[in-house]
Amino acid sequence: MDLQETQIDSKLILEGSFINIHQDTVKLPNGKHSQRVWISHPGAACVLAITPEQQVVLVRQWRYATQQALLEVPAGKLDAGENPAVCALRELAEETPFTAEKVEKLTQFYTAPGFCNEIMYVYRAINVRKNSQLNTNEDEFTETILLNIDETRKAIANCEIQDAKTLIALNFWLSEHA
Amino acid sequence: MDLQETQIDSKLILEGSFINIHQDTVKLPNGKHSQRVWISHPGAACVLAITPEQQVVLVRQWRYATQQALLEVPAGKLDAGENPAVCALRELAEETPFTAEKVEKLTQFYTAPGFCNEIMYVYRAINVRKNSQLNTNEDEFTETILLNIDETRKAIANCEIQDAKTLIALNFWLSEHA
Repeated sequence: MDLQETQIDSKLILEGSFINIHQDTVKLPNGKHSQRVWISHPGAACVLAITPEQQVVLVRQWRYATQQALLEVPAGKLDAGENPAVCALRELAEETPFTAEKVEKLTQFYTAPGFCNEIMYVYRAINVRKNSQLNTNEDEFTETILLNIDETRKAIANCEIQDAKTLIALNFWLSEHA
Repeated sequence: MDLQETQIDSKLILEGSFINIHQDTVKLPNGKHSQRVWISHPGAACVLAITPEQQVVLVRQWRYATQQALLEVPAGKLDAGENPAVCALRELAEETPFTAEKVEKLTQFYTAPGFCNEIMYVYRAINVRKNSQLNTNEDEFTETILLNIDETRKAIANCEIQDAKTLIALNFWLSEHA
């Protein structure tokens, strides 16, 4: 079955600081035309970091779009041309008092493919340790929260984890201890 | 720690067919002002539907923003005021040749809380059966794909499942058969 939608026309509606909004005309598989408003995003990386004490490193931060603070794995947008693995290590060091020796890729996925091309790369941190030198951004406000595996299971069951990438990353950890 | 960002000003930049784009000025916890471009979305529901033959019902559809067809659990945006459970049942019936008696909630999450308030409600379908009466939308093009549990594990391991809600929904099924 032919599913492809072909671009007929594309307009850049808005350039944000990191997302751009586009309005395209597309040709559907049946030949009809339709409109697609979509968001381009540079992509992002997140990291599952487990401390030597078997606690996961999470950050609580205000998510303006949701009007609440959410509990999430450390994550951030890719800088232009940045390797997602480098981004994941950088965000861990910037957002939390932990660093890692390296990261290994767990998976990747689209967060909201119905209207946005954001791809999220998910890594596991290797050799997580306390960071003596913090490189924080003074306009970023985050709290680091450490949860052991039972606390993590409870937090998921109680819907305290409300973020897609965090549910997916934590599941890799939980499934190893099923 | 005070994490809250307070709205100082809000502008509606674009009204899309289902998403609206806003540009707000906010006050950060340190008193500085900053800009937030964010997307409002009506919310969505998706459904984990397992047939009596122990196959999961997936749909393959073109995702214009990602420039490819993705394999996903049936899902759709909430109509104005719609109960997400009703939406989940409706989308299963509209997008696939299956229906269900009812649904039970599994979880809910934000898909991309860094810039969008889309909340995704995840349901499990109860008493899934073949649908003799299809209520398809003629401008929606989807293929139904049925996978058994081993095929599902392989599809995830091979990164053929690239969609956040689908990874989260499938994990509920897989974790029951760990």
